[in-house]
Amino acid sequence: MALVLGIDPGSLKTGFGIVNSVGGKNEYVASGVIRLPANESLPERLKIIFQSVTDVIIEYQPNEMAVEQVFMAKSAGSALKLGQARGAAIVAGVNQNLPVAEYEARKVKQSVVGTGAADKFQVQHMVTHLLKLSSVPQEDAADALAVALCHSHTQQQLIRSTRSVTYRRGRLV
Amino acid sequence: MALVLGIDPGSLKTGFGIVNSVGGKNEYVASGVIRLPANESLPERLKIIFQSVTDVIIEYQPNEMAVEQVFMAKSAGSALKLGQARGAAIVAGVNQNLPVAEYEARKVKQSVVGTGAADKFQVQHMVTHLLKLSSVPQEDAADALAVALCHSHTQQQLIRSTRSVTYRRGRLV
Repeated sequence: MALVLGIDPGSLKTGFGIVNSVGGKNEYVASGVIRLPANESLPERLKIIFQSVTDVIIEYQPNEMAVEQVFMAKSAGSALKLGQARGAAIVAGVNQNLPVAEYEARKVKQSVVGTGAADKFQVQHMVTHLLKLSSVPQEDAADALAVALCHSHTQQQLIRSTRSVTYRRGRLV
Repeated sequence: MALVLGIDPGSLKTGFGIVNSVGGKNEYVASGVIRLPANESLPERLKIIFQSVTDVIIEYQPNEMAVEQVFMAKSAGSALKLGQARGAAIVAGVNQNLPVAEYEARKVKQSVVGTGAADKFQVQHMVTHLLKLSSVPQEDAADALAVALCHSHTQQQLIRSTRSVTYRRGRLV
């Protein structure tokens, strides 16, 4: 069993989603969106991200954290803002001694929808389907759940490939 | 009296410098460079920035923190890396309840050298001169001391302008 916290950082909204991975199946635990007041100073906004992610970690006690790697931003200015939000979220994880994994956006979409070119509606739809949710989560929360699912799938594949190696060679490598 | 911590964040090296501002004069307290191993993962490098800045704050107990605003990076990729380092450093400050001020690079150079177009050698030279240092600090440490000095000068100007208003109008505004 592993509780995975997925994070979709942004300079205005940061999504989070927690998935419980048990015996190859994934169950929904929680998700939400940290909204950042646009009129606050940058340090205050980064403090909100750091404290909110820390609060989520303390409340749900995940074992691992996964963050979407950023597709190239439109401009250096928006990349800087996104980087700052991402730095604040990742630091909240490592400060709570969580291992933090990163996944490219294409890999997250591939893992959840089956194609790296999926759009956000397909991601929302497949997250709702895979986790048997009764309603569609907000976009940033869905992206955070998707990266948690991607991490969980990747870990399960690693376990399967280790087992297959064990079987073929008759010993653990 | 105010102890000001200046930070010059970077994805490979983060400079810090502490200046004690007493009665309009600035004294050198400490400075250094946090070097980030290039072969570590991003979360590990951000953890080093966060923990090292936190350690400096706990050791020297500054009252305020000042960070240089980033001049536009060459590419979205380098802006993202810089943003992440900056986010980790700023969060270390706000997590220790320090007020964090930001200054444009031009304003820092103007404040320390007298011209916003100064180069890094002029900044190093003037920081050495203004703080009566016996040797020239490393470039990132000098930049961090420069932003601390800029914050200190700005605060002193605010005090002077308040006094001048008091004098001219005969009452505090």
